[in-house]
Amino acid sequence: MFDRKAIAEALSVLEARFGARLSRHPAVREQHGRGEAHPLCAPPDAVVFPESTEEVAEILRICHACGCPVVPYGAGTSLEGQVCAVAGGVSLDLSRMNRILEVSEEDLDARVEAGVTRRQLNRELASRGLFFSVDPGADASLGGMAATRATGTNTVRYGGMRDNVLALTVVLADGRVVRTGGRARKSAAGYDLTRLFLGSEGTLGVITELRLRLWPLPEAVAAAVCPFPSLEEAVDAVVETVQHGIPVARIELLDERQMEASIRYSKLADLEPRPTLFYEFHGGARAVEEQAEAASAIAQSHGGSGFRWARAAEERRRLWRARHDAYYAALALRPGWRAWVSDVCVPVSKLADQVRQARSDLEEMGLLATILGHVGDGNFHVVALLDPEQPDAWERLLEVNRRMVARALACGGTCTGEHGIGLGKQDSLLAELGEGVEVMRAIKRALDPRGILNPGKIFPPLAGEPPVAPGP
Amino acid sequence: MFDRKAIAEALSVLEARFGARLSRHPAVREQHGRGEAHPLCAPPDAVVFPESTEEVAEILRICHACGCPVVPYGAGTSLEGQVCAVAGGVSLDLSRMNRILEVSEEDLDARVEAGVTRRQLNRELASRGLFFSVDPGADASLGGMAATRATGTNTVRYGGMRDNVLALTVVLADGRVVRTGGRARKSAAGYDLTRLFLGSEGTLGVITELRLRLWPLPEAVAAAVCPFPSLEEAVDAVVETVQHGIPVARIELLDERQMEASIRYSKLADLEPRPTLFYEFHGGARAVEEQAEAASAIAQSHGGSGFRWARAAEERRRLWRARHDAYYAALALRPGWRAWVSDVCVPVSKLADQVRQARSDLEEMGLLATILGHVGDGNFHVVALLDPEQPDAWERLLEVNRRMVARALACGGTCTGEHGIGLGKQDSLLAELGEGVEVMRAIKRALDPRGILNPGKIFPPLAGEPPVAPGP
Repeated sequence: MFDRKAIAEALSVLEARFGARLSRHPAVREQHGRGEAHPLCAPPDAVVFPESTEEVAEILRICHACGCPVVPYGAGTSLEGQVCAVAGGVSLDLSRMNRILEVSEEDLDARVEAGVTRRQLNRELASRGLFFSVDPGADASLGGMAATRATGTNTVRYGGMRDNVLALTVVLADGRVVRTGGRARKSAAGYDLTRLFLGSEGTLGVITELRLRLWPLPEAVAAAVCPFPSLEEAVDAVVETVQHGIPVARIELLDERQMEASIRYSKLADLEPRPTLFYEFHGGARAVEEQAEAASAIAQSHGGSGFRWARAAEERRRLWRARHDAYYAALALRPGWRAWVSDVCVPVSKLADQVRQARSDLEEMGLLATILGHVGDGNFHVVALLDPEQPDAWERLLEVNRRMVARALACGGTCTGEHGIGLGKQDSLLAELGEGVEVMRAIKRALDPRGILNPGKIFPPLAGEPPVAPGP
Repeated sequence: MFDRKAIAEALSVLEARFGARLSRHPAVREQHGRGEAHPLCAPPDAVVFPESTEEVAEILRICHACGCPVVPYGAGTSLEGQVCAVAGGVSLDLSRMNRILEVSEEDLDARVEAGVTRRQLNRELASRGLFFSVDPGADASLGGMAATRATGTNTVRYGGMRDNVLALTVVLADGRVVRTGGRARKSAAGYDLTRLFLGSEGTLGVITELRLRLWPLPEAVAAAVCPFPSLEEAVDAVVETVQHGIPVARIELLDERQMEASIRYSKLADLEPRPTLFYEFHGGARAVEEQAEAASAIAQSHGGSGFRWARAAEERRRLWRARHDAYYAALALRPGWRAWVSDVCVPVSKLADQVRQARSDLEEMGLLATILGHVGDGNFHVVALLDPEQPDAWERLLEVNRRMVARALACGGTCTGEHGIGLGKQDSLLAELGEGVEVMRAIKRALDPRGILNPGKIFPPLAGEPPVAPGP
């Protein structure tokens, strides 16, 4: 689709301008050609490292003039192949744009460059009694989290990027720079451009700066773990907790396979390999106590036993670190195998049934997998392990995923709660939104008429078009 | 801009199809030609009353084919002239699409037609222990609230339409029907079409159905009023309450003029005409007690005296009814005068200063006005009263508004927190977002190439274009 000569020309102009900040080194290209979980590696022709919004604008003007693909790259932690350079061109690595520009304790907001990572920001904020709430697990860049509309463990209480980004600075395909808003907590000023770019996966513009909403560190925090006799009972406890409006800060499910993996990997010898809920409560001291009592009573009524408290910060960190390392714990079950992660999200009342059927499909297909999820939102993940020696394992896994997505859509859910479309879910997007995908295409054409921004992502090929990415 | 013959042709086709459900009666047209607060009345050529999404699609196919303007109309409570038919054409009155289609107590969601009003839905929900949280004061239609991205008194805790609409059914300009999502609490499936249509003021499509997020009625509710010696001290109390992360459900400011008006109109003889905060707390019994104690201590430390409790539902309703009737209370100060409402939103730390300067401008201009606001979000309103006998009062008011908007933008705020752009704030939108308005125009052209959807709204005329609406 893209003219190789045009790409070569863009690269030579960029190289003249950026010198050593443009790399054609195979290792650098290879590193930028893949994210996590999605198996494809499609290296760009070069990687360029801009240091300011103005430099990004300059790069896009050059690439737009030549017709050269541009793939934004943050920390490389996306899971659906969003960073793969399937049409070649330039990977735009924003990791040098990592300055925290402003933090306001009075207004609970911050302004950061897109390459700042979540943990970097939270380290800076902790001493001021503040935190940034969106927590997808990985130490992703905030620009990447915006581009994929990330959520995570405490979205059930604090919302995701959709709710915690006040405004963006975005460079458009032709190099124009747009600021989508200011510092107001809300605005009704025209179309919601902030939300339009959130989740657009680099296909509508390159996010270079973010204005974020911050939260005061809660006065009191308590965590708890509670094992259940069965997965269904654990999920029922979640459903009832949500229905009662108990404002849990996190409520996470790990199934027995995942618990087994995590107990081994994260040295949680004191826990049992049974379906387990991890809870966290935030608020005033009395509110936390009240929430925890109510959640504990609900857990008990569903067979949960030994609601175990972790009030000390140290112990809480140990538990949540284990939860965050769940993916790596699953990977460690079979060294040398690779992992793949699903991501459907359904109405919470359908959750138990959906999880049960996913487990049954995995068994039918003979696949080793763990299940875990942000169950308060109805979002769950299958982490499947693939033996590279069994080439048909990938096909069996795709079949499991197809069934999971079809069931999720049939009950009003979505094919992706938080990982996005990228390369992996284009057909599912079409199945989910139909005509809506045409609306997205119209917007894409209006804002990026030459199609240089992250080509091959989100949109399934039109009839007659070759698929941009070969199947893995 | 629009060919009168084309409009006439569309009307005759529509009349043949819809019979008595199309009205050309002058009183009906007049009623549909104006909202609240904005002075212009621009009646459509006819009003049509569809009863289903399919009928709306049919109307749009006809109007699209002919090139006839279509102005969606809900309850007519918008404040910036959004319903004025400045280019003639058809007003699409959705009030007959008023069915509540589905309520799920398990999943805390509902599906409603666009003409259902906020109070209608909440009456239906109350017996099920649920509520819909977005509360702009007026008994607006939910479709209209979506189209203007409404917020209101408890947005500080529960969010606005942006946060409480899960998905929409939208009819596009050419009659295609799009569903923007399903029932999942969150999704990363492609561009956020739901949020794109929220706040588009009928210029991108006609919202015909909404999937809404519901909340369980809180276990405990407490309300309080607290007068302060000065407006600055009241605002300082708000700022500190927000900074402490106390999850107040509502925190509203009424200045002394507004209190004077409300005491008279809503018969609040037990209150004093001083700057006053209205609070509401939701949660478990202990959490509510804890929040209220903390907020009360903060209020006292800023000179607030007599933090007065209203735990009984009856007394709470009386207080909040008074708050909701504030606009009508202000209007009643001068029978026969008309009211106009401003709507800036600023970072909360700037609020006291912005309110003080607005008050000083109003005095300089000799205008009678009250000030009130959703101060937890930094959003405040001036309700100004205009003597129809003083033709220059309007000019003086516009000058006050210009200064308020300029100051709000200078400190990172927005020209509109919740009322939208409509006819009234087009220049302010340009001042606020600059190049961003070009992005909006590109999207508008892509989705409504003939420009039939609510023409003349949001976008300032391009150079050489005549203004669509004459100044009032």
